[in-house]
Amino acid sequence: MTINIGIIGAGRIGKVHAETLVTSVKGVKVLAIADVALPAAQETAARLNIPTATADYRQLLDNPDIQAVIICSATDTHAQMIVESAEAGKHIFCEKPIAFDLKKIDSALQAAEKAGVKLQIGFNRRFDPNFARVRQAVQNGEIGQPHMLHIISRDPAPPPISYIKVSGGIFFDMTIHDFDMARFLIGSEVTEIYTAAGVMVDPAIGEAGDLDTAVIMLKFANGVIGTIDNSRKAVYGYDQRVEVFGSRGAVNTGNQYPNSAVVSTVDNIRRDLPLNFFMERYTESYRAEMQAFITAVVEDKPVPVTGLDGHIPVVMGMAALKSYKENRPVRLDEIQA
Amino acid sequence: MTINIGIIGAGRIGKVHAETLVTSVKGVKVLAIADVALPAAQETAARLNIPTATADYRQLLDNPDIQAVIICSATDTHAQMIVESAEAGKHIFCEKPIAFDLKKIDSALQAAEKAGVKLQIGFNRRFDPNFARVRQAVQNGEIGQPHMLHIISRDPAPPPISYIKVSGGIFFDMTIHDFDMARFLIGSEVTEIYTAAGVMVDPAIGEAGDLDTAVIMLKFANGVIGTIDNSRKAVYGYDQRVEVFGSRGAVNTGNQYPNSAVVSTVDNIRRDLPLNFFMERYTESYRAEMQAFITAVVEDKPVPVTGLDGHIPVVMGMAALKSYKENRPVRLDEIQA
Amino acid sequence: MTINIGIIGAGRIGKVHAETLVTSVKGVKVLAIADVALPAAQETAARLNIPTATADYRQLLDNPDIQAVIICSATDTHAQMIVESAEAGKHIFCEKPIAFDLKKIDSALQAAEKAGVKLQIGFNRRFDPNFARVRQAVQNGEIGQPHMLHIISRDPAPPPISYIKVSGGIFFDMTIHDFDMARFLIGSEVTEIYTAAGVMVDPAIGEAGDLDTAVIMLKFANGVIGTIDNSRKAVYGYDQRVEVFGSRGAVNTGNQYPNSAVVSTVDNIRRDLPLNFFMERYTESYRAEMQAFITAVVEDKPVPVTGLDGHIPVVMGMAALKSYKENRPVRLDEIQA
Amino acid sequence: MTINIGIIGAGRIGKVHAETLVTSVKGVKVLAIADVALPAAQETAARLNIPTATADYRQLLDNPDIQAVIICSATDTHAQMIVESAEAGKHIFCEKPIAFDLKKIDSALQAAEKAGVKLQIGFNRRFDPNFARVRQAVQNGEIGQPHMLHIISRDPAPPPISYIKVSGGIFFDMTIHDFDMARFLIGSEVTEIYTAAGVMVDPAIGEAGDLDTAVIMLKFANGVIGTIDNSRKAVYGYDQRVEVFGSRGAVNTGNQYPNSAVVSTVDNIRRDLPLNFFMERYTESYRAEMQAFITAVVEDKPVPVTGLDGHIPVVMGMAALKSYKENRPVRLDEIQA
Repeated sequence: MTINIGIIGAGRIGKVHAETLVTSVKGVKVLAIADVALPAAQETAARLNIPTATADYRQLLDNPDIQAVIICSATDTHAQMIVESAEAGKHIFCEKPIAFDLKKIDSALQAAEKAGVKLQIGFNRRFDPNFARVRQAVQNGEIGQPHMLHIISRDPAPPPISYIKVSGGIFFDMTIHDFDMARFLIGSEVTEIYTAAGVMVDPAIGEAGDLDTAVIMLKFANGVIGTIDNSRKAVYGYDQRVEVFGSRGAVNTGNQYPNSAVVSTVDNIRRDLPLNFFMERYTESYRAEMQAFITAVVEDKPVPVTGLDGHIPVVMGMAALKSYKENRPVRLDEIQA
Repeated sequence: MTINIGIIGAGRIGKVHAETLVTSVKGVKVLAIADVALPAAQETAARLNIPTATADYRQLLDNPDIQAVIICSATDTHAQMIVESAEAGKHIFCEKPIAFDLKKIDSALQAAEKAGVKLQIGFNRRFDPNFARVRQAVQNGEIGQPHMLHIISRDPAPPPISYIKVSGGIFFDMTIHDFDMARFLIGSEVTEIYTAAGVMVDPAIGEAGDLDTAVIMLKFANGVIGTIDNSRKAVYGYDQRVEVFGSRGAVNTGNQYPNSAVVSTVDNIRRDLPLNFFMERYTESYRAEMQAFITAVVEDKPVPVTGLDGHIPVVMGMAALKSYKENRPVRLDEIQA
Repeated sequence: MTINIGIIGAGRIGKVHAETLVTSVKGVKVLAIADVALPAAQETAARLNIPTATADYRQLLDNPDIQAVIICSATDTHAQMIVESAEAGKHIFCEKPIAFDLKKIDSALQAAEKAGVKLQIGFNRRFDPNFARVRQAVQNGEIGQPHMLHIISRDPAPPPISYIKVSGGIFFDMTIHDFDMARFLIGSEVTEIYTAAGVMVDPAIGEAGDLDTAVIMLKFANGVIGTIDNSRKAVYGYDQRVEVFGSRGAVNTGNQYPNSAVVSTVDNIRRDLPLNFFMERYTESYRAEMQAFITAVVEDKPVPVTGLDGHIPVVMGMAALKSYKENRPVRLDEIQA
Repeated sequence: MTINIGIIGAGRIGKVHAETLVTSVKGVKVLAIADVALPAAQETAARLNIPTATADYRQLLDNPDIQAVIICSATDTHAQMIVESAEAGKHIFCEKPIAFDLKKIDSALQAAEKAGVKLQIGFNRRFDPNFARVRQAVQNGEIGQPHMLHIISRDPAPPPISYIKVSGGIFFDMTIHDFDMARFLIGSEVTEIYTAAGVMVDPAIGEAGDLDTAVIMLKFANGVIGTIDNSRKAVYGYDQRVEVFGSRGAVNTGNQYPNSAVVSTVDNIRRDLPLNFFMERYTESYRAEMQAFITAVVEDKPVPVTGLDGHIPVVMGMAALKSYKENRPVRLDEIQA
């Protein structure tokens, strides 16, 4: 069985999903792609033989042949599009974050639930084979009962200041992935957060009202204690590692490299820098999350990343920010919609 | 600019090349695929939207819109197809080995040269980012003048005995890749070969007239001394590593793994087995060699793996076998067409 | 030039220092060893050809030929022995911690200062070649300005409950080493501490009033944010690693292993467990700290680990404990003598 | 029980053994040290409290209190000293090689056997924990039946030309360790050797009649095929690695490093060079071989490295040289005393 898909948004991540769906995912046909910038939609449609390109995403919602949509538009449109897509009876894959407003998120989730459509959120890193292997080790008891978690998540370079001004800040544009990863790896909810952070990379980031360096401590309902280490600038490249320690052992992952060559000279023993950024590092995860969504729809099974999985990291971001501002541990139940 | 391609052979490697060309290579359009087993050609054509499927490869050669062919048919047809394709004025990518008969190889090479078409041989491992990085280190002098080379190349499990009986034997179905790699990494020709080998994995392989374990010593024209270590069965998986040692250092590569997770328990510190076989390990190299061929044709530049590169490893295989049989070092110039 | 030494305490660490001083340290002669348990002193004296064994450490202080003492007796005697040794004009090496009472520590430090004798505290890990290399990388700017620090410090198994009852608790018997390491690696003082901790390894530890698992966040005066991860039980062995991340790079260390052998089988790729505990892991550091002390005395140079270095980690332990009890970040200046 | 020892030779290795025996080996007392250069013997005796220093080794043989001798004198005296020591009824530890003349070796071995004294040869690398772990893996079947062996053994820099002129050449001053290691790891005898070699490091070595780069292929009686890779100059330091591949897996070892620190910067991911030469790399092995000898004598058990173990590598060196000169595989039984 095959389902027909429409893609909303032909920006960077929209193009990635389009290409993945057309070339590497089984059980799907891309019927249309929409973007307010019509030429972007047309360019991608032409390159990938997608029959329809349009500036109006409502064309996709009105098309009875389309059973599911991939929402890759600007963040501030996500919640509304989820609502409209749900009302149109389409299954939905939506990029994270759903919104920065908990009420909007809840409305979107309710709309999907009411319409009985599937809603998967784009936390692609769950599908990275490295982190998936860590979760497997935790879940199948290879390391016993988990006690501590560490996530290191550093970008190779900060985004433009213009982006930082509208991104919601480091906890919402960067740590949000790590908040999801923390819940995913441990399989328990975070109850309290304490944040230490600063501006160490670039004063301009501070002037824009944001932070560029943070260490966030997490307490989980099951007793696990975790930390997240974020920097907007690791000069040696994208640094993405995790470690879970438990009663019967530990599991950790290293970075991914473009090659395994080691060069030994009179100076040192060295290798090349890791894969530079998320498009290279998480290539496989983008394919796997798309396949998982399509399979969930085709086989009518639960999606692996739910609407609630989109809701909670936003709450965590709010708690992290509040903790930083007030320099005290903040319980997640202090955060109100 | 775009060129049109026909694919001859829809077996395992033919399918891989077809999919790669359709989805991941720039500057090319696949117009037709041929296979004596028509349903195989039709299945691949349907899946990848290739307009024409045929049982007769001559249809491709007769099609004036097709500028190049990818020959993935049975080995014993390669030489003849090169000749016919060259006479039809098509550029040619041909899977290795060209043939087991040096006269046939020479005829094929002469036909391509006479017709003025490009001929690239399918030594895909040259395009693996690990080995490419080693060659780069050698070429740009990172390790000075090379002195020694070691290649470890072990398969996870032997092929069926039925295959071994027709493959030409270990030096032609397995070591041939390593012979090419040796020349590629060192950038000099081998002049003499000494082989020690045995049947250690499975007596049935010996009964079929072949060997399953071999260490082959190579002397190069530039003085480098090399070894190749081959086994048909490494129980822990596909083992593919190289090392070049030189006057100013050394470079070596490790295996490729499905993930980087390390698990520590009371028993040991461990990781999962490496990627199991060539389709997983060399995925990227198949894409890169196709792109290199298409680019060479489109931009009218030399192909990176020439007909001569297809000829010499066969000579080396013959020398390796002769050395084993006579238990003495054999010079390559002892091998006559 | 050579100095004469007396050793006070012939327990486990006293024996280690005695053997090291006799066999591996230049510029020193051990004249006497004292222990309230005379047979222990006698056994070590006989084995190492130390001329005098006594039950009364005052014999050492009264001996005008002895220029320096190594205090390895029970923790609750350290401060008093420092005072007496200083008054006797002996240079002093004292095992950590000096005391659990800040007033006693201050008295001891003042006595040493007043007497003009050298006082070195036994934070041996500073002399481990791995951590020394990290500090070097930080100090010489290899990684630029430091931003974040992570210390993982896990014991292979908890000490006996009887020890835990008198040790002062995890922050004083275990984390105290990591507090010193944090200051050593970053070269700046900690101003605030936040602690999350629990009893996850053994309920008996909780019943004894202690914790067995802790994550401690540190804020440094220079802006660096750090974490310490402690567990009393890592089933795979002694786990001692650090990482410093900075504006121009990062440096981290791994564990030490009894051998480098990697075994690959059909199950996995594995190596043996790390060196099991501090006597194996930090062997070299015990030698190096003794040599450093002797050299400081002989050449009349500053000791590398001062009395203040013994004072501050105790303050940090008090702040860590207070933070845990009150679940809030605690500034070090809240801790009063 | 304790035995009394005399050391013959106070050069570099004699000093190492003296210090080890005095400070780190149980069950032994060093009574005397002899060296034709009396001041060398006296200096070591004074430093280590050895009662007697003499220019005449016969004093040690005549001393009835001495039960065993450690022969560390010049190679050309080894065989004669073994004979004399055996006739004096002393147990013998002798540095390798025993001699370069097989008749002399046999005479020495016969003398020891006739006298009923123990004779251990100084192949210290067998006691390195890395190689010991590899042998253990082979012996206890962790990797099944061994099929192939690879030894990489490269020095950081060539010895002086003056040494090369008298050392017997690369196969006797360098490869001899690897010949022993090959037999030790595989537990079977080598039957045939083929050598490819050259002068690549320094023409002066060739002018002195020696080689500086060699790859040696070994065939073992049990079917294993092995290689040894030797270079007199690895600019990145002492390179000592082995790998054994078998029917159920593989085991290999890496180099030893002064620290485990990894530095990541914008240039690369790097670590410091390995331990530079044998005194640092094989420190532990020197202690362990001395302890093994003393224990064998004290407990009257077989020595772990026999006279025959000293004989066979010399035969292998002769075969390797003959193979190189005649460019053909040479059987060990072609070599006559």
